[in-house]
Amino acid sequence: MQARILDNGVVRATNSPADVAKAHEAGLVLWVDLETRTPELDRLLAETFKIHSLTIEDIWASRLLPKLDDFDGYLYILVHALDHSSSARDPKPLELDIVLSATFVITHDSSGCVAEQVQANAERLERALAKGTGWLVHAIVDLVVDRYLPLLDEFDDQIEKLEKEVVQKAGTPEGTPVLERIFAIKRSLQALRRFTIHQREILLRLSRREFDEIPVDAAPFFRDVYDHFVRVTDLAESYRELASGALEAYLSVQSNRMNEIMKTLTLVSTVMLPLTFIAGVYGMNFKNMPELEWTYGYPYALALMVVVGTAFAIWFRRKRWL
Amino acid sequence: MQARILDNGVVRATNSPADVAKAHEAGLVLWVDLETRTPELDRLLAETFKIHSLTIEDIWASRLLPKLDDFDGYLYILVHALDHSSSARDPKPLELDIVLSATFVITHDSSGCVAEQVQANAERLERALAKGTGWLVHAIVDLVVDRYLPLLDEFDDQIEKLEKEVVQKAGTPEGTPVLERIFAIKRSLQALRRFTIHQREILLRLSRREFDEIPVDAAPFFRDVYDHFVRVTDLAESYRELASGALEAYLSVQSNRMNEIMKTLTLVSTVMLPLTFIAGVYGMNFKNMPELEWTYGYPYALALMVVVGTAFAIWFRRKRWL
Amino acid sequence: MQARILDNGVVRATNSPADVAKAHEAGLVLWVDLETRTPELDRLLAETFKIHSLTIEDIWASRLLPKLDDFDGYLYILVHALDHSSSARDPKPLELDIVLSATFVITHDSSGCVAEQVQANAERLERALAKGTGWLVHAIVDLVVDRYLPLLDEFDDQIEKLEKEVVQKAGTPEGTPVLERIFAIKRSLQALRRFTIHQREILLRLSRREFDEIPVDAAPFFRDVYDHFVRVTDLAESYRELASGALEAYLSVQSNRMNEIMKTLTLVSTVMLPLTFIAGVYGMNFKNMPELEWTYGYPYALALMVVVGTAFAIWFRRKRWL
Amino acid sequence: MQARILDNGVVRATNSPADVAKAHEAGLVLWVDLETRTPELDRLLAETFKIHSLTIEDIWASRLLPKLDDFDGYLYILVHALDHSSSARDPKPLELDIVLSATFVITHDSSGCVAEQVQANAERLERALAKGTGWLVHAIVDLVVDRYLPLLDEFDDQIEKLEKEVVQKAGTPEGTPVLERIFAIKRSLQALRRFTIHQREILLRLSRREFDEIPVDAAPFFRDVYDHFVRVTDLAESYRELASGALEAYLSVQSNRMNEIMKTLTLVSTVMLPLTFIAGVYGMNFKNMPELEWTYGYPYALALMVVVGTAFAIWFRRKRWL
Amino acid sequence: MQARILDNGVVRATNSPADVAKAHEAGLVLWVDLETRTPELDRLLAETFKIHSLTIEDIWASRLLPKLDDFDGYLYILVHALDHSSSARDPKPLELDIVLSATFVITHDSSGCVAEQVQANAERLERALAKGTGWLVHAIVDLVVDRYLPLLDEFDDQIEKLEKEVVQKAGTPEGTPVLERIFAIKRSLQALRRFTIHQREILLRLSRREFDEIPVDAAPFFRDVYDHFVRVTDLAESYRELASGALEAYLSVQSNRMNEIMKTLTLVSTVMLPLTFIAGVYGMNFKNMPELEWTYGYPYALALMVVVGTAFAIWFRRKRWL
Repeated sequence: MQARILDNGVVRATNSPADVAKAHEAGLVLWVDLETRTPELDRLLAETFKIHSLTIEDIWASRLLPKLDDFDGYLYILVHALDHSSSARDPKPLELDIVLSATFVITHDSSGCVAEQVQANAERLERALAKGTGWLVHAIVDLVVDRYLPLLDEFDDQIEKLEKEVVQKAGTPEGTPVLERIFAIKRSLQALRRFTIHQREILLRLSRREFDEIPVDAAPFFRDVYDHFVRVTDLAESYRELASGALEAYLSVQSNRMNEIMKTLTLVSTVMLPLTFIAGVYGMNFKNMPELEWTYGYPYALALMVVVGTAFAIWFRRKRWL
Repeated sequence: MQARILDNGVVRATNSPADVAKAHEAGLVLWVDLETRTPELDRLLAETFKIHSLTIEDIWASRLLPKLDDFDGYLYILVHALDHSSSARDPKPLELDIVLSATFVITHDSSGCVAEQVQANAERLERALAKGTGWLVHAIVDLVVDRYLPLLDEFDDQIEKLEKEVVQKAGTPEGTPVLERIFAIKRSLQALRRFTIHQREILLRLSRREFDEIPVDAAPFFRDVYDHFVRVTDLAESYRELASGALEAYLSVQSNRMNEIMKTLTLVSTVMLPLTFIAGVYGMNFKNMPELEWTYGYPYALALMVVVGTAFAIWFRRKRWL
Repeated sequence: MQARILDNGVVRATNSPADVAKAHEAGLVLWVDLETRTPELDRLLAETFKIHSLTIEDIWASRLLPKLDDFDGYLYILVHALDHSSSARDPKPLELDIVLSATFVITHDSSGCVAEQVQANAERLERALAKGTGWLVHAIVDLVVDRYLPLLDEFDDQIEKLEKEVVQKAGTPEGTPVLERIFAIKRSLQALRRFTIHQREILLRLSRREFDEIPVDAAPFFRDVYDHFVRVTDLAESYRELASGALEAYLSVQSNRMNEIMKTLTLVSTVMLPLTFIAGVYGMNFKNMPELEWTYGYPYALALMVVVGTAFAIWFRRKRWL
Repeated sequence: MQARILDNGVVRATNSPADVAKAHEAGLVLWVDLETRTPELDRLLAETFKIHSLTIEDIWASRLLPKLDDFDGYLYILVHALDHSSSARDPKPLELDIVLSATFVITHDSSGCVAEQVQANAERLERALAKGTGWLVHAIVDLVVDRYLPLLDEFDDQIEKLEKEVVQKAGTPEGTPVLERIFAIKRSLQALRRFTIHQREILLRLSRREFDEIPVDAAPFFRDVYDHFVRVTDLAESYRELASGALEAYLSVQSNRMNEIMKTLTLVSTVMLPLTFIAGVYGMNFKNMPELEWTYGYPYALALMVVVGTAFAIWFRRKRWL
Repeated sequence: MQARILDNGVVRATNSPADVAKAHEAGLVLWVDLETRTPELDRLLAETFKIHSLTIEDIWASRLLPKLDDFDGYLYILVHALDHSSSARDPKPLELDIVLSATFVITHDSSGCVAEQVQANAERLERALAKGTGWLVHAIVDLVVDRYLPLLDEFDDQIEKLEKEVVQKAGTPEGTPVLERIFAIKRSLQALRRFTIHQREILLRLSRREFDEIPVDAAPFFRDVYDHFVRVTDLAESYRELASGALEAYLSVQSNRMNEIMKTLTLVSTVMLPLTFIAGVYGMNFKNMPELEWTYGYPYALALMVVVGTAFAIWFRRKRWL
């Protein structure tokens, strides 16, 4: 557990639950970042902060869907951040629990992602805390949302690359990995959509001045975060459409190319077969085959073959098959 | 019929309808689990508990769709549990009828699934009953919903396995069973969706403090059950999409593989046919074929074949068909 | 025209419009089943019952869409029953017009289907009439809705049979009739959906205590009819999905099977062509072909063929084409 | 310009804008059908009738989307009629502008279609005008909507014919025109839907007693027009589904037929190739080929061919390929 | 920065922020078109015009989604114009920021597109400014929307051309570029839809008399702009459907054509193979082949070939394969 207490306009850090309890009882504004579950912390949450038992379960459990619950005296918010190692191939959501009341913020993420971001943005977050708990939550949520944009850029790159490769490689021996990447991207985007759609709703509700815990003048800032996230979901949706379009294009181009190949090859066979047949006829061993005796029998046979072959070629051309 | 009566804070069991009627008239809180229909039970429901004739029909009938009816004095809830023998291949919903009023709970399931769960969770359910009828219904519904998660895990496993097999086996002789399993899973998920979507609505309404029968402080717990069930329907929906994706992938990979095979084989034929034709020409029996008399006629013919074959190979390579 | 008049608690029948008019003016509850249009009936509707001219047109016309119009003093309801000869191949909706007011019910169906059901359920309908006009309409609508369930059972059977046949017959010579049956069922279900969706809305509105013509204590019964019809539309929708799934399965299995066949056949050709080519080479008539003179030339050629054929077979096996 | 003025219950016609202006100032009810734009007419609209400049632009412009604007003192309604020459191949919407106030109706259509219908229905329209401006607009809109039904009947015929032809002709040389007709019909229905959907909304709003310009007792008649138009859009939608179904059927039947053909032809080739190979072997010119010397060598070779051919046929039959 | 100040009914231009600040403090109506960001401008916005810091960020940032924010004292509107160089292949949206209050309008576009249009429409915009800030914004938005129509016309042309080419070229060697153009157009339309859908909502809200900044008598004009934009989105949507239809048509026609080709070619092979086989039989070198000795052996063999070939042709014709 790491806690920051706002004491007379100064933020000081502590690791002691007892300190935290004392500060809370003294009415100080504070922020607690829980780490691993201990009975002592559970008591702190339940007895000092009066957190509902369902919320305590939700904090420690791992949930797949974002959530926003309005309890007496506090808001419970579950949003998903993105892990550092997320990629277009494998976006990894990290669960982040936030409990927001007028005088305290409690956060929890199992991976320590918040703790790490606090390190990196300590000053900014402490300034936010000094303005009030709603502003701190805004700062944290803003950090979370910003993490999505690099991932979307990666999707953008990957899809653009795919779209080029589709035209070049569909239906060639290098086509299969392209196809597999299209399916992988579609799956990733589906997973992304699953939690971002719920998360967007939660951000919308936070920006609507619906809850007392969020100060009125912070609302436009939550609205701004929401607008950013709308862009995230909008882009994710449009990448999904692009990925579907890429698949459709792959299949069409592949079919086009295969058709071209099969047609050409079949044309070759179709011309060759009658010629082979003529050769076969004059390879027959009948005693009495006048052509075989002709002085110019051989040139005649070759000429016949040329004529038949040419006739086929003209026919194909007429039908616009070549 | 099995009944439990809360008498002075103690739960006692009984099998006698007369006992139940007496307890109800004495204003005691009680829970009746109906088993098979008897005229005596029908009278108990209609006369003692004042259950509407339509509800009595609904209790005994077997219905495919979940239902929530608000009658004077009680709520009728029809939810679906899952049978033990349910699997991703064949999810078997069990109908569970619940009648909830301020002083009694009546349950009925034709398969005895509740009776069995009561056995396993007797203590927990009796504790819930001691808190009130709304809490008992919460405990029962919670048990029902928990049953869905193992099934969804099974779907998860199956689909993950399928996704791997699709890439390996589509278009090979082992492909057909994979295809059949994809269709079987899609059908199961469709059946699952059909009743879970309605059931989710019912759980939502139960969590909304819309009904007097549900105590205000139980609402967050019903909300929690609802949240779990949202996860069930969300997962089911996303598995449906994954199964559709797997089918799409199957067809694409199969088409890719078949195209590769057909192309290769046709290339072989296309090279072979002209060579066979040359052999045919020099197999003709014309008297006067100068090449046949040449000392190096045979090597010349073989060389011609090599040249033609190589020319084709180069042409294919140029067109990127190989 | 057939009319039943409730006179002092007794239902009596009459065919005389004058009788009906008199009874209506005396304030008696009555039910008129119109048959063919006559000027006399039109006058009865317009003058005695004060039916709006638009409603009179609607009653006699044949309409494709269910309808519910709330006029001053009466409700006009148009629902669709099913003809006896309906089948999964060809569901035949019958239009049934109902005019409901506090003191009279007027029904009309061109096919005489109601008249026939009255015959069969006379006692039940008269009992309903004795309770009030709203109860009579409930009884009639209930009869209509019950007719849908056997049709849906037929769909169920047909689709189950189809699903089995799809796996067995897709891509075989017996496949085409299966395909045609799938399309026929899809068309039937589309037609069914077209009017059942509107009809469901009408039943919902009737069950909502929205209209004075429907007594408050009849509302749960209309709700029950609505619930039955929800099941009808739900099943119809899910059969549509199953039929689409069957088509998808048909095309996939067919493609799978065709691919298997084409691949096998092409493999045979691919092995045969090089062997034929070798035979062609040693069938050439060059004077100077050393192999032809060898004592073991013939076995050597056969051995060469075996080697080439085996090489191809190994190559195919390696590529997992066999 | 053609105008009709209701003067003391008598309708009289005039072509003079001055007459119209005078009648309007005298408070008479009148109907003006504009023809071509003139500055004089613009002045009449703007100054006498106080029509907003945006409405005047809308009247003379040609718009693709139906519209309903409620201005101070009048309603502006833009609906689409159908041209005489409309067909399932090419439905041609005609724009019809209507301005409705308590005392005047102004109509405009560039093609003169209304003028023509007035000719044909003059008496009926004048009777409507005598009842009030709302009734006249009802009569005009009713005429417009009635024009859609013959077009829908034509779609019905065409699609029914197509459905039969699909089964017969898909995959045969006569298939391509069928395919093109399916696409043409889909395009027509899409165009039809584009304006009918908006038009339906407008008719709904007109029937809702939302506007003072429409008398209360005319509302059921507008509702009736709306109901007719719902049928139009419903049918159009269901024809779209049928056309999509026909396309799907076409592609399936074609694929089925092609598969049958290709399979049969490939079977023939597969049987022929090994036989040709055997003939090739015994056509080789090795000195030392014992079979060639056998007395029954030739019958033996033929017998071998029969055996091989039969073996293949049995194999195909076993695999259910024949 | 370019500003226009309305001073005693006369519009005068200025480039000096100090001037602008003075005029604003004097209560004059003015319009400021920002160009590049400078600290001085930021101060002007924040201190003189009291623009919220979030809005200032939004003005200078580049956003993908249209936006409408209602702040105390002003409206922030972000719409997208189209760049001159936009084409159906590549529609290029230009961001245009508008801040509208009762006494000032601030505009900003990074590309200088507005500045350019002001040049071209200076008089009209100044007349609008003279009527009020709401009218100026109407004039600007009207200019923006008008830019979309030529782009849509281009789409119309392109799709019409594509539809013709699809029928001619699908499945021929010139088919691939047609296919690529279809995909390019679908992508463009998707991009267009992404921002036009949000923009339409914004125009709707502007036309709804929802904001004090927009004068009541300007509302019908905003409504008119909205109506134009509805047509833009409606057309874009219908072009998307047409493009999808064109793709579907392409694939169908291609498949049709390929099937025709493959069938014809396979028929040729199927007739040729048995004939070649016959020739092969009589090319065998058995000592004892009676036919070879016949005087009419050769004509007999040719006749046999004709008979077999004709038999196949009849069989194909019977099966309607030719």
